[in-house]
Amino acid sequence: MKEQGNLFYAQSGGVTPVINATAAGVIDKAAENKAAIPKVFMGHNGILGLIHENLINGFSLTSSQRKQLLQSPGGAFGSCRFKLPDDIKHPIYKRCIEVFKAHNIRYFLYNGGGDSQQTSLKIAQASQYYDHPTHCIGLPKTIDNDLPVTDTCPGFGSTAKYIAVSTQEIALDVVSMHQTSTKVFIFEVMGRHAGWLAAASALGKKNKQDAPHLILFPERTFKSEDFLHQTASTVRRYGYCIIVTSEGIRDAQGNFISDANQTDAFGHTQLGGVAAYLSNLVVSELKLKTHFAIADYLQRSARHIASKVDLDQAYAVGAKGVELALNRQSGVMVTIKRLSNANYRWTLTQTPLSRVAAKERKLPSKFISANGYGITNSARTYLHPLIQGEAYPQYRHGLPQYLAFQPEFVPKKLPDWNDPDV
Amino acid sequence: MKEQGNLFYAQSGGVTPVINATAAGVIDKAAENKAAIPKVFMGHNGILGLIHENLINGFSLTSSQRKQLLQSPGGAFGSCRFKLPDDIKHPIYKRCIEVFKAHNIRYFLYNGGGDSQQTSLKIAQASQYYDHPTHCIGLPKTIDNDLPVTDTCPGFGSTAKYIAVSTQEIALDVVSMHQTSTKVFIFEVMGRHAGWLAAASALGKKNKQDAPHLILFPERTFKSEDFLHQTASTVRRYGYCIIVTSEGIRDAQGNFISDANQTDAFGHTQLGGVAAYLSNLVVSELKLKTHFAIADYLQRSARHIASKVDLDQAYAVGAKGVELALNRQSGVMVTIKRLSNANYRWTLTQTPLSRVAAKERKLPSKFISANGYGITNSARTYLHPLIQGEAYPQYRHGLPQYLAFQPEFVPKKLPDWNDPDV
Repeated sequence: MKEQGNLFYAQSGGVTPVINATAAGVIDKAAENKAAIPKVFMGHNGILGLIHENLINGFSLTSSQRKQLLQSPGGAFGSCRFKLPDDIKHPIYKRCIEVFKAHNIRYFLYNGGGDSQQTSLKIAQASQYYDHPTHCIGLPKTIDNDLPVTDTCPGFGSTAKYIAVSTQEIALDVVSMHQTSTKVFIFEVMGRHAGWLAAASALGKKNKQDAPHLILFPERTFKSEDFLHQTASTVRRYGYCIIVTSEGIRDAQGNFISDANQTDAFGHTQLGGVAAYLSNLVVSELKLKTHFAIADYLQRSARHIASKVDLDQAYAVGAKGVELALNRQSGVMVTIKRLSNANYRWTLTQTPLSRVAAKERKLPSKFISANGYGITNSARTYLHPLIQGEAYPQYRHGLPQYLAFQPEFVPKKLPDWNDPDV
Repeated sequence: MKEQGNLFYAQSGGVTPVINATAAGVIDKAAENKAAIPKVFMGHNGILGLIHENLINGFSLTSSQRKQLLQSPGGAFGSCRFKLPDDIKHPIYKRCIEVFKAHNIRYFLYNGGGDSQQTSLKIAQASQYYDHPTHCIGLPKTIDNDLPVTDTCPGFGSTAKYIAVSTQEIALDVVSMHQTSTKVFIFEVMGRHAGWLAAASALGKKNKQDAPHLILFPERTFKSEDFLHQTASTVRRYGYCIIVTSEGIRDAQGNFISDANQTDAFGHTQLGGVAAYLSNLVVSELKLKTHFAIADYLQRSARHIASKVDLDQAYAVGAKGVELALNRQSGVMVTIKRLSNANYRWTLTQTPLSRVAAKERKLPSKFISANGYGITNSARTYLHPLIQGEAYPQYRHGLPQYLAFQPEFVPKKLPDWNDPDV
């Protein structure tokens, strides 16, 4: 017989176009198991919701709100960037367990990237330490696709699709104007340490002359001279050059280019990110007209162009987490396992949290082309299935009907938590 | 009986998500009138295609390519930024008329914004001066929506929709993270002199607390202190602040903020556009965490989220231009006339080119709210119909099927044009 207890779920770290689909998967699956899980608590602002006992009644969402969750970007219950202390004896862990006890929480599902899986691991350890057995399950999420073990991370496929489509669209703009206008276009995408998103920009590239012509990966050292040489020769060959850069490229000394307060030809110091830096470099050294776009949060909230595969996986991962918890698993993260590339068949399984917590998966060398500025066929084979299918939100009067709801908070049972650090 | 002659069409200035739909409208309508219009020539790179006799056979496009035109951003035939000389006696005009004569061109349709309508007007004058009667028709196009007389400009509605949707998406991201992360987000959109696109960012705003909280219009002087005051008070009230800025905002001296080589609190000079400038201002003066996105060409090529109304108008404008030309009109631009706001009924009519050439329509004062940072209900009533309806491109393997074709150039009949200025 399944153990009875309530479930806590929360969203952590940078949000994605589909993290709410995972929340919907959790609520729906829990609702199918109300005998075992009488209540579902959604933490407000991630782990902070647990610490401050700010719990939203997950079963209070109407079925239409649950459907809207599936089509709304952002983190509907609030997310956070918050690192728990290393020491398991820190009072904050005792507090977490007190909240578990006060609300009879026996299932803890935490939805995030590598750092957030570290949080799941810590909570699992704390629940053992304080002898309040809790089934702690990590749910993967990150647009950066940098969690190890899992085939991909929900959120990545949709952001990758946004970037692949946007790169093609920008290229069609630039090619039509290049004779008398912009010759070099720079598109800055996320990826502080791993180039998965930048790699996805090439998914629409069929021939050598197609965009993007140069991709700058964090996995490769940025060398100004070679970059300028490649840019100039691309412009000579095709008349224009489309460049996609990861925000996290670094120079030979390991310094982020985005942090470079370099002066340009006019003695001006430059701030404003990698794209502005590269643009100024091309203008001053090659005397070519440039433009640049910085996608920033646009890319990780672009639910309007989500990948159907990604959305399906995000939902399935949430439901699977509840299943694993009910089956008395703990200390594991749900992972996606690829069964075949053709028609992309996949299934869900799990891995110990210790294998993913605070870990980072970079783009493997076999995915980066020999010159360092493009992707290989292996990369395409891996990436292409993840952007398949369109999953448009419903529109009303020309705009997507994204979820806007007043959360129903659960009455508090404990005194306020007054640690000044939290 | 209709006069027999060939038709020249070209795309000019910054491209839009739907300018190719206008080209499709031209080709389709001309194809219905082959007795009067035996050949359609698409100028390669705008008016430069005429000058250099680089003419693409418009009837060579297959019906499937014509359908793809309807769903492809960029300018399929190439566009240009090129200003014809003022003096009608300049040899370049004689050259244009020679190309007209060599290819029996009697219909001239030019698709662009205010500067491009100036080109249409010049060509109309030249055809009179050189006694080669040509029916010259301007077709409106610009994402900036700054052409006078016409209700709107094809291209604006789709870009407005992209901005309205993106603003809502960004807001959902920021609201879910603001407690422990970004407090102020800045979204930079196009609009060097007019704030139509920035205004569209508010179309998803239902309540005062919704994003965007501040819009910076080129029509209002940027005042740092007031801006910082508004930003700080918004953050105090809601916890975060979403700002949409036109690229073209200026200070009290009339200088573009984007040109400001201001030094920040660290003595660093700043380049990289308005968003970077505002971000640094907020960080240094308010000590708040910021993020910013710069849409740049993303917004004017985002065919994947085009407005159906906009697409329909773009196509209709092309077809109407052919009709007007066949009815012996000349020296006019096709305009859109609004018949009603409810269910947005519209029709097409025309206006003399002299009323639109090199003119600019700014956002009227009645569209900007009293405090200068928002839009009024009149603005909503005007703007909302223009983003109605979705017109998704067809996807294959996860990506839009945008047109890629090898243009069939028409054999040249004249010697090369060797003016060093062109």
